[in-house]
Amino acid sequence: MDPVLYKSILSYNGTEFAGFQRQANARTVQAEFEQALRQLGWQGQSIHAAGRTDAGVHARGQVVSFRLAWDHSENDLVKALNYYLPQDMAVSSVEVADADFHPRYSAIWRRYRYHVICQPVRDPLREMFAWRVWQGMDLERMNLAAQDLIGSHDFKAFGAPTSDSGVTVREVFAAEWQQEGDEYRFDITANAFLYHMVRRTTLMLVEIGQGKFPVTTIAEGIRTGQLPLNGLAPAQGLVLEEVSYN
Amino acid sequence: MDPVLYKSILSYNGTEFAGFQRQANARTVQAEFEQALRQLGWQGQSIHAAGRTDAGVHARGQVVSFRLAWDHSENDLVKALNYYLPQDMAVSSVEVADADFHPRYSAIWRRYRYHVICQPVRDPLREMFAWRVWQGMDLERMNLAAQDLIGSHDFKAFGAPTSDSGVTVREVFAAEWQQEGDEYRFDITANAFLYHMVRRTTLMLVEIGQGKFPVTTIAEGIRTGQLPLNGLAPAQGLVLEEVSYN
Repeated sequence: MDPVLYKSILSYNGTEFAGFQRQANARTVQAEFEQALRQLGWQGQSIHAAGRTDAGVHARGQVVSFRLAWDHSENDLVKALNYYLPQDMAVSSVEVADADFHPRYSAIWRRYRYHVICQPVRDPLREMFAWRVWQGMDLERMNLAAQDLIGSHDFKAFGAPTSDSGVTVREVFAAEWQQEGDEYRFDITANAFLYHMVRRTTLMLVEIGQGKFPVTTIAEGIRTGQLPLNGLAPAQGLVLEEVSYN
Repeated sequence: MDPVLYKSILSYNGTEFAGFQRQANARTVQAEFEQALRQLGWQGQSIHAAGRTDAGVHARGQVVSFRLAWDHSENDLVKALNYYLPQDMAVSSVEVADADFHPRYSAIWRRYRYHVICQPVRDPLREMFAWRVWQGMDLERMNLAAQDLIGSHDFKAFGAPTSDSGVTVREVFAAEWQQEGDEYRFDITANAFLYHMVRRTTLMLVEIGQGKFPVTTIAEGIRTGQLPLNGLAPAQGLVLEEVSYN
């Protein structure tokens, strides 16, 4: 039986992980996944992933690929992987992929969601999956500014390149805030993202919404290559929701 | 300055607690709250609470009372308590209470919410605050059965008495399931609850919804004092949402 290339969708609660990518002496999503695969006879060097989420970032739609000789159905492979994976990770689907499939290079877009809650006191039931801010935010200002992200731009002010090529041009397809009570969520879809791009953009938009910076700050940041803030919105508010392929 | 009786609303993520009530050698909500109070000069023996939630049960509206000599505003007391409380607990409000106020005996009703998600595979982003079930559920059946809870009944089949009196009559004011996609939530309001009553009722209703027991099971359980199931829905799906006073 020859090994076959599988594509798998993975979700995880990022709280207890030092990020996706394998590291010595740290608990990572990649290492836990590879550990589970080894229980099924996998002898590969490394799985591939659509994106390397930061420490503390969650995922509902991370995509990984691996080659495995597997005798049973894809549904049984889901069950077997979930049996061996720790409680804060789970596989939601597995399918056979085309031989030239690569979760990162074959992706046509990624969608992230960032959760913000706006209230003055701590909230232990929600803060594991959201960034809590004190100061009120104006949704309309945030959405006006977010509009300027859309299109193909040089986002060098918004993050660091993810490959040696140094290319910082990305195409943003959608960027919108929605509000429900004291909960705000920001959905952003792009062909690909720079390192830290979603968290840096979210922090900027929140502070625009709080009136600390003008609505034109995003457009100016794209035009000049500089933003007035250097920080990041906290990791625990961010979820990699979906990666799409042709 | 004389001590004053305060009423405070408390929320907590129950995951890392061995329940509300103080115990030797276990982390409890009560012990952590009293520890924070001591930092503010409290020298009482024990706080009082509206209800003693089980290990793993969450709260958004637990109510506690304590006597404290406090020089500053109620808002400053909220801030001071939250400064000393651990990250998985927070006070959302503090107010001066009438001298005869007792969080348990003065309460006129309590409301709990139970979260169920219905899907075959594990879900690490939601399972900390929900019970995941595999088998589909029929919302209409669950709501038909839940209707029979409403009113003043002897609920001895649904839980254990909470006082030496052994009284097992309780009055349920509202009991309803709502569904949104694969998420189901059960809201139940009563003058008071027996020990384990919400979790036992939820398990029974879920299995009625899955067709394992007839819709009349709840009415029969009230009439006969017996239920066909002895288990409990898992703690992590339950939240004490609100306690109401005159």
